[in-house]
Amino acid sequence: MIKAVFFDIDDTLYDTSGFARLARRAALNVMIDAGLPLTTDEAYLLLREIIDEYGSNYDKHFNILTKRVFGEEKPLLIALGMITYHNVKFALLRLFPQTTKTLIYLKAQGYNLGVISNGITIKQWEKLIRLDLHHFFDYVITSEEAGVVKPDKKIFEVALQKMGATAEESVMIGNKFSEDIMGALNSGISAILVNSQLEEQDKEYLEKNNIKIDVISHIGELKDIL
Amino acid sequence: MIKAVFFDIDDTLYDTSGFARLARRAALNVMIDAGLPLTTDEAYLLLREIIDEYGSNYDKHFNILTKRVFGEEKPLLIALGMITYHNVKFALLRLFPQTTKTLIYLKAQGYNLGVISNGITIKQWEKLIRLDLHHFFDYVITSEEAGVVKPDKKIFEVALQKMGATAEESVMIGNKFSEDIMGALNSGISAILVNSQLEEQDKEYLEKNNIKIDVISHIGELKDIL
Repeated sequence: MIKAVFFDIDDTLYDTSGFARLARRAALNVMIDAGLPLTTDEAYLLLREIIDEYGSNYDKHFNILTKRVFGEEKPLLIALGMITYHNVKFALLRLFPQTTKTLIYLKAQGYNLGVISNGITIKQWEKLIRLDLHHFFDYVITSEEAGVVKPDKKIFEVALQKMGATAEESVMIGNKFSEDIMGALNSGISAILVNSQLEEQDKEYLEKNNIKIDVISHIGELKDIL
Repeated sequence: MIKAVFFDIDDTLYDTSGFARLARRAALNVMIDAGLPLTTDEAYLLLREIIDEYGSNYDKHFNILTKRVFGEEKPLLIALGMITYHNVKFALLRLFPQTTKTLIYLKAQGYNLGVISNGITIKQWEKLIRLDLHHFFDYVITSEEAGVVKPDKKIFEVALQKMGATAEESVMIGNKFSEDIMGALNSGISAILVNSQLEEQDKEYLEKNNIKIDVISHIGELKDIL
């Protein structure tokens, strides 16, 4: 009997990857217009390198970028990039279709809802608030809080403890097999993959270990399962 | 012969103090609505204490506030406070009347324009961009960049050097006697006080040292002087 339903946020509840690319290119175009001597594609490639190197949660990507191009930081360009990135990001911030409807349905069915997310606590809450989702979730557990990232068992154990539910009473929904699904399975929690497909090696792993998981193409299909 | 005109930003070009108070109270009301067990006045008093203690450029005032009230940080309340503060702040961000008109006039007269500001470089650029003023200024010098705050002579010397102007060819416009006016006078730069009045001790200081400065009630009056 499932009592607790846990969700990942990014690319599970809303389209992070798609809009981040658009927001970054918009920011770079404004910086180019103000004197950054690169084409959009060159600048985007350099920014991607910097993000890979420093991680997506680092908040000084544009500082590094101007330093690499000019040999020193350019405050005007950095500020123009940051403002444009944030404006475009918030303008594009949208839930995947049927997300709110599905969360209302789950609450009405009596489930407790939680979030288990790799990220910075305040930033993840900020997303939930801006998406108007914060009223749905009883608990939000982040990797910053737990001190480890998914798929580490510890973050799932912290979540179960906060929620007052056992692993058998819980289900985890996410788009990343290696983080959301593997983390849940390793903790004895059942798992549902959304907005993503099983790779060959994932299928082999599941078959070898005789595990079945649900794979849904969008969050609205949760109603058929829960 | 004046060639370079330097401005302070906060409370000189736009009304910082007035809107900050409104934005903070709006943020606290949202936090109270979400569970902060204080009245608006109690919360505002506590926030003011924290700002006085940590400085206005510190970015974790709401973290400290929830920690003082609850004994631990409350991420939902912190995020709600931060989002509301920023939304209200940007909604209210307005130049003082005649600011843009006066800057256009000064550029047309052939003056070079600069900013000398106590603050964090990127944040000060962000304000200039959001106010659409960044195209007017040839150089922006912040205390973060100079390593000292106004009234220290060094920040004015850095500004003169960047601008390629002597002290005699320059004038500083600001609202704070102890920072903008004293700093300029100590560096041999003439000064104009705006949006503020001379205190008794300021008048005594000026008389004793036989210094005359212009005092204007709003920035539009610069046209009568320059």
